[in-house]
Amino acid sequence: MIKLIQVDKRDNVAIPAENLPKGSVTWENLTILEDIPQGHKIALTDLAKGDKVIRYGVTLGFLNTDVSKGSLITEHMLTLPEPPALDSLAAGTGPYPDLPEAPLKDFEGYDVPGGGYAGTRNILGIMTTVQCVSGVLDTAVKKMKEELLPKYPHVDDIVALNHAYGCGVAINARESHIPITALRSIIRNPNFGGEIMVVGLGCEKLTPDMLLEPEENNPENVIILQDHKGFRAMTDALLKMAESKLERLNRRRRSILPLNRLCIGMQCGGSDAFSGITANPAAGYASDLLVQAGATVLFSEVTEVRDGVHMLAARCTDDDTVKKLAKEMAWYDEYLKDGGADRSANPTPGNKKGGLANIMEKAMGSIAKSGTASIAEVLSPGERPSRKGLIFAATPASDLVCGAMQFASGITLQVFMTGRGTPYGLAAAPVIKVSSRTDLQDMWYDLIDVDAGLIASGKETIEETGLRLFHKIIDVASGRDKPWTEKYGLHNFLCVFNPAPIT
Amino acid sequence: MIKLIQVDKRDNVAIPAENLPKGSVTWENLTILEDIPQGHKIALTDLAKGDKVIRYGVTLGFLNTDVSKGSLITEHMLTLPEPPALDSLAAGTGPYPDLPEAPLKDFEGYDVPGGGYAGTRNILGIMTTVQCVSGVLDTAVKKMKEELLPKYPHVDDIVALNHAYGCGVAINARESHIPITALRSIIRNPNFGGEIMVVGLGCEKLTPDMLLEPEENNPENVIILQDHKGFRAMTDALLKMAESKLERLNRRRRSILPLNRLCIGMQCGGSDAFSGITANPAAGYASDLLVQAGATVLFSEVTEVRDGVHMLAARCTDDDTVKKLAKEMAWYDEYLKDGGADRSANPTPGNKKGGLANIMEKAMGSIAKSGTASIAEVLSPGERPSRKGLIFAATPASDLVCGAMQFASGITLQVFMTGRGTPYGLAAAPVIKVSSRTDLQDMWYDLIDVDAGLIASGKETIEETGLRLFHKIIDVASGRDKPWTEKYGLHNFLCVFNPAPIT
Ligand SMILES: [Ca+2]
Ligand SMILES: [Ca+2]
Ligand SMILES: [Ca+2]
Ligand SMILES: [Ca+2]
Ligand SMILES: [Ca+2]
Repeated sequence: MIKLIQVDKRDNVAIPAENLPKGSVTWENLTILEDIPQGHKIALTDLAKGDKVIRYGVTLGFLNTDVSKGSLITEHMLTLPEPPALDSLAAGTGPYPDLPEAPLKDFEGYDVPGGGYAGTRNILGIMTTVQCVSGVLDTAVKKMKEELLPKYPHVDDIVALNHAYGCGVAINARESHIPITALRSIIRNPNFGGEIMVVGLGCEKLTPDMLLEPEENNPENVIILQDHKGFRAMTDALLKMAESKLERLNRRRRSILPLNRLCIGMQCGGSDAFSGITANPAAGYASDLLVQAGATVLFSEVTEVRDGVHMLAARCTDDDTVKKLAKEMAWYDEYLKDGGADRSANPTPGNKKGGLANIMEKAMGSIAKSGTASIAEVLSPGERPSRKGLIFAATPASDLVCGAMQFASGITLQVFMTGRGTPYGLAAAPVIKVSSRTDLQDMWYDLIDVDAGLIASGKETIEETGLRLFHKIIDVASGRDKPWTEKYGLHNFLCVFNPAPIT
Repeated sequence: MIKLIQVDKRDNVAIPAENLPKGSVTWENLTILEDIPQGHKIALTDLAKGDKVIRYGVTLGFLNTDVSKGSLITEHMLTLPEPPALDSLAAGTGPYPDLPEAPLKDFEGYDVPGGGYAGTRNILGIMTTVQCVSGVLDTAVKKMKEELLPKYPHVDDIVALNHAYGCGVAINARESHIPITALRSIIRNPNFGGEIMVVGLGCEKLTPDMLLEPEENNPENVIILQDHKGFRAMTDALLKMAESKLERLNRRRRSILPLNRLCIGMQCGGSDAFSGITANPAAGYASDLLVQAGATVLFSEVTEVRDGVHMLAARCTDDDTVKKLAKEMAWYDEYLKDGGADRSANPTPGNKKGGLANIMEKAMGSIAKSGTASIAEVLSPGERPSRKGLIFAATPASDLVCGAMQFASGITLQVFMTGRGTPYGLAAAPVIKVSSRTDLQDMWYDLIDVDAGLIASGKETIEETGLRLFHKIIDVASGRDKPWTEKYGLHNFLCVFNPAPIT
């Protein structure tokens, strides 16, 4: 007999861990009036038009029809509540729970000149000022990997940081600082060990001085293709500069460092109704352990937390942080409005197929990945942290854009929770995949790194899965383990967020 | 002694083909009052504050300072004129010149099932519904190229059509039809021979039914990664489907076809002051020959023609075409305004270094690539032509985005004029590079395919260079020749235009 999962005692809906055929009776003695797919909502009592549907203890929406006890509640039956107002948010109304004690306080990372966060990998990252150069750079990197990389065994990889920004863009537009800040920051990701290599064309709008400090902007670090006598000369120059960087990177070794030198990111994608009760809460527990040990953990995805922003505000440590949170939310509200879209644009067909009715239900599940720690800072897109601990980095929810922008903010590893499954990867940081359902782990046995579905089937508690994930994070960060996508070399475009027009 | 280049008899400025030192005297007996870099504007008479600066017979701007005969005129001395109003444009005021007779009327192309434009290459194009799948697809394509492609010698290449659209986007936003139309059209590019292969994830917003007709959307043509049991099974499925497509593509052969089966595109990038007097007019002459022979030639780059839109309107063959031209221009005006940018955002630092003062001067040079033919049709971004002849395809000027959007509109070859030089390339269509200066051809001897700089040095006329380019286009289209970027395999991201917000 199937047990229904009710997250909060106040909830008037619950979800089944497996498909429930019409007529079945659950463990709680509820008779099911129609076929209910796994993860979809069942009414626990008779409900009338206008009634609230409550899950996670909050109102997901208002019913536009009567629903009988034991029936399915779909997205079409729900009217969204108003989003929380941004002008009345207050900091520090709590809760500030004690965090669980982390079983480990250090990891083995790559120190970076000048200190700060350490790397989890040792990579030559080659930044581009403009997409125009990426064809030449790609062929050169292929040659570098064949001819140079084998000579430098302590270097993990060479990555061309190709992106779509740099020219044909309104470089002085209101929001152009967002992609520019992100690209400046990416150069400084700890996984690149402080080595700077930038490839420009020579006539683009994004010039090397916009990405580099004056003392960095010199022929040791910057190659301009228009200064070279043809394709073969460009390729030679790229290989020569790469070799000098590889020589230095090859001297780097891992050392034991306290966890306050680690900065990781959390995001979810292809979520389902289980994400919010298995994978995300487990990630939240791992996050609490990391934060307790002094690490920095970023979570993001503005459109997904928008409807729960009052809960985030209450966890901010001061009013300035709340103000910045409200400012980032307001900016995104306006950005969507300007483009003729709104927050209801977020849930995907896959989310809905998985049982997530609307953005409110998705928000509650999404926020679960941030655990219970206080929020120490809010970052604008691509900005780097100035504080340690749990940080909200405002990025789009798009897996690709969130990945690029968290990487810009300095994460050296990402944890990715998924219900439906995605082979998403970052080129220059390992990504650990956590499944919300054991079905997915069984199906994608060679892509999912940690299964949180054991929580739904009652085989593990949230804390047990969270602790397993914590150890996986430390092992991957320390180079003792690799997630599947890293083993296969799966990665995506570096989708830097550019809300400004192109020309 | 240096000869100055004056485009139109009404011009009160001219440009030198080489650097002119202060004190030198030109062929026209003009004494140069200060160092003038190659391609920059010299005042031919004394001019006063408020005077018009005239080039190409049109007003580039108004002087904000007095200028003496023989002095340099820079961008900072010019105030832009108002852009032409869009509500008073009229069609058919002429001119409709006789076009020059083309010396050839056919080429060797790949016929496509159902007729229409023919291919210039025979490529397996694998469309993606979403960026999430691109890591898996890239590793599969690498395997396909190693294991399958050598078995099918009549197939030129296998191209993963990765793009940044598909999820994390506001799929119902006002302008989402633009990227969706483009991706639908790209699948149907003649270079893909009518074979359809689409890779989706399974939970994205852009679903295969939005890209395909119902009868196309079946397991013969569509692979959904979430339906496969892990990474290895996905890879196997991708290789299996690719092989069935390759078998069919491998039966294709070139045949002699009339030029009305050819559709090519023209664009420029990294322009300088010579682009508008050498490369672009030569391209315009080649365009006239092609159109005379019945071919379809697209030109684009809204922000670059905006200031000369009245000249384009006068060449449109009917009022509906003018209305669509005005509508596309107005749309772009609003798009830039919404993003806090304006048309002055277009010229790049490289343009300015090359002597192009402003968007007006750039417009006159840019429009030159369209030759003198009447404009038969105006296309919205990513739309495919319904008429033959010269067509204005409204796209951004960004080289990458213009390339992707012209490819969506069905071009099978692009001609690319450049003053400063760019290694830009398209993955699935050859791109012929035309230099505006012989300096650039000398410098980039292994990247420039046709030198139009011979026009500036008086060694060739515009017509002679244009005819050479025409023959190059036919040779490349017919597979008898390859441009440099194709030889090296240089290509860029498929930067589909998405003016809608991401979520
Ligand atoms: Ca998410
Ligand atoms: Ca607006
Ligand atoms: Ca996401
Ligand atoms: Ca151009
Ligand atoms: Ca262009």
